[in-house]
Amino acid sequence: MKAAVVGGGVIGGGWAARFLLNGWDVAVFDPDPEAARKIGEVLAQARAALPRLYDVALPPEGRLDYAGSLAEAVADADWVQESVPERLNLKHRVLAEIGAAAPADAVVGSSTSGFRPSELTAKGDRAIVAHPFNPVYLLPLVELVGDAETCASAAQTLRGIGMYPLHVKREIDAHIADRLLEAVWREALWLVKDGIATTEEIDEAIRMGFGLRWAQMGLFETYRIAGGEAGMRHFLAQFGPALQWPWTKLMDVPDLDDALIDQIAAQSDAQSGALGIRDLERKRDANLVAILRALKVEDAGAGAVLRAHEAGMTRG
Amino acid sequence: MKAAVVGGGVIGGGWAARFLLNGWDVAVFDPDPEAARKIGEVLAQARAALPRLYDVALPPEGRLDYAGSLAEAVADADWVQESVPERLNLKHRVLAEIGAAAPADAVVGSSTSGFRPSELTAKGDRAIVAHPFNPVYLLPLVELVGDAETCASAAQTLRGIGMYPLHVKREIDAHIADRLLEAVWREALWLVKDGIATTEEIDEAIRMGFGLRWAQMGLFETYRIAGGEAGMRHFLAQFGPALQWPWTKLMDVPDLDDALIDQIAAQSDAQSGALGIRDLERKRDANLVAILRALKVEDAGAGAVLRAHEAGMTRG
Repeated sequence: MKAAVVGGGVIGGGWAARFLLNGWDVAVFDPDPEAARKIGEVLAQARAALPRLYDVALPPEGRLDYAGSLAEAVADADWVQESVPERLNLKHRVLAEIGAAAPADAVVGSSTSGFRPSELTAKGDRAIVAHPFNPVYLLPLVELVGDAETCASAAQTLRGIGMYPLHVKREIDAHIADRLLEAVWREALWLVKDGIATTEEIDEAIRMGFGLRWAQMGLFETYRIAGGEAGMRHFLAQFGPALQWPWTKLMDVPDLDDALIDQIAAQSDAQSGALGIRDLERKRDANLVAILRALKVEDAGAGAVLRAHEAGMTRG
Repeated sequence: MKAAVVGGGVIGGGWAARFLLNGWDVAVFDPDPEAARKIGEVLAQARAALPRLYDVALPPEGRLDYAGSLAEAVADADWVQESVPERLNLKHRVLAEIGAAAPADAVVGSSTSGFRPSELTAKGDRAIVAHPFNPVYLLPLVELVGDAETCASAAQTLRGIGMYPLHVKREIDAHIADRLLEAVWREALWLVKDGIATTEEIDEAIRMGFGLRWAQMGLFETYRIAGGEAGMRHFLAQFGPALQWPWTKLMDVPDLDDALIDQIAAQSDAQSGALGIRDLERKRDANLVAILRALKVEDAGAGAVLRAHEAGMTRG
C-alpha cells in the first residue's frame, strides 16, 4: 500500500510517520527545501514512541520517498492526504492537481481543521475531510466528513493503521473537536487578557482536573456520573440554570492584538521555555504512550482502539 | 486532625473520603436521612481506588462520625468544608452557622463552583473558595480563591492529603476550570441541538483526541508544541485569524428546554445506560488510577503530585 502526503509540516509529517510505521510506502511532496529535515524530525519522534505502544512488533517500516512533483508523489497511491496551509484557494489548486494525477480509486483526504467537504469539492474535485490530531502518530482520532461511501471505506483503512475514525454525519465549519477547542481557546484568551490566570495556571487547571477525566470519558458520560444516582436528567436540572449565570457574558472574541500575543508568548516562555521543542515533544510522547498503555490494560477508550489494532496485527 | 464536611452529596462525600483515607477524622453533617448511605457509596468507591495509586500504605483511616447538628460537626475541626447546593442565601446561612460554632483558626472552605469569595463573605462570615473536582478522592485539583494568607495555609494542608491547590489570584465568577468547562458545554449543547453529533460522538471526539493531550499538558503547552520549531508566536500567528472565522458565531446560549433535555438524556441513555452509575464510577476510577499511575512513572503533571505525596508518606 502506498500513501502520498502532500504538505510536510507537523501534520503531514505525522501522517507520513503513521503510515510508514504501519508498513505503508509513503511519498511526500512539499516544495519547502527544509521538508526532508522537518519530516525527519517528526519521524524520529514517532519511531521512538509508536512501537512502545504495542506488545508485538509493528510490521516492517515502509519506504519513504521525497517526490520531485505532486504528480509523481500521488501516482499509484492508495491514499492521498492533503495537509497544506489552511487557505481555500490553495486547497482547491492542490486538490485539482491531485485529481489530475492520482488513481481514480485513491481516497483523497484533507487534513483541514476548518473547511467543510462541500467547500473543498466546490470546484468539482473529489476529497473528504480526514482531520487528525497532533501528534498524528499517537492520537487515534480522525474526523471524517463527506461522501458516506468514501468515508466508510476510508474508515476501514484508518482502522488498519491504528486510528479511530469518527464519521461526522452533518458538515459544519471546524467539525466537532475544533468547535470545542475553539470555545476553550476563546475563554482562555479572556482569562489571560483579564489577568485572572497565566498560561501556566490555566494549563494546571486543565491537567490536574478535567483533563484527566477527558482522557478516558468525555463530557457527557462524565456529567452523567456527576448526576449521581439520578443520572443525566438530574445533572441537567442542576447544571442547566448555570448557563444563564453572568459568566456566560464573556462570549465575545477577544482581540488577538500584539499586546495579547506578547503577553501569551512571554508567559508561555516562562512556563515551558526551559525545554526546547524536541524535548517537549519527547516528554509529551512519553506521557501519551504511558497513558495509552495504561488504558490498553483497562480496555477503555483509546486503549480499546490500541488493543483491537494489536489483536489485528497478531492475527497477521 | 479533624475535618467537618457540611453537605454530603457527591462532592461532600468525595471530600470525606479524601480526608478519611489520608488519616483524618471526619464529621459529616447533612440533614438528608439518606446521607449516610450516599456517603457510604462514595467511600466504598474511594477505598477501592485511592490506595491503588500508591506503592506504600496509606495512613490508618480516620474515624467517621455523622453529627446530629452542624455545630457538633464543626466543633474542634481543623478544616470545615461546605458543600451545600449552589444557592447564595443557603451558603450564607450555613457559613454563619459554621462561623458561630467552628474554632477560630479552622479553615472554612467552600466547594462552590460559581460564587466568588467576596460574595460568600459578604455577610461578614469567613470562607475561602476551595473548589474540587469529581471524583474528589482521585483528582488532585483544588482551586483556592480568597484571602492570600488563608489560601497559603490551606494549600499546605491540601498538599498533605495529596491534592494540587491552585491559587487563583483574582476572583471571577466560576474561577478558572469551570469557565473552560462552561464554554465547552455551550458548544456541545449546540452540536447536539443542531443534530451535528450525538452525546456519544462528542465524547469520542474528546477522549480519542485532545482529552489524551490534556491529561498531561494543558492548552498552551500543547499549542506551543503545535507551533513546531517556531513556537508559541508562530502558533498564535497561524491560529489567531481562526477566531474571526464564521464558527465563532455560535456563542449564544442555547435554550435548555424540555426538548433539548429529552434529546440529551435519551442519547446519554443510549450511550451509557447499559451500565449502572456505580459500574460507571468503578470504570472511571479504574481508568483514572491507571492514568495517574502511568503519569507517576513519568513524574509528569498529576503523576508528579502523586509522587511527591508518596515521598512525604514514606518519610513519615
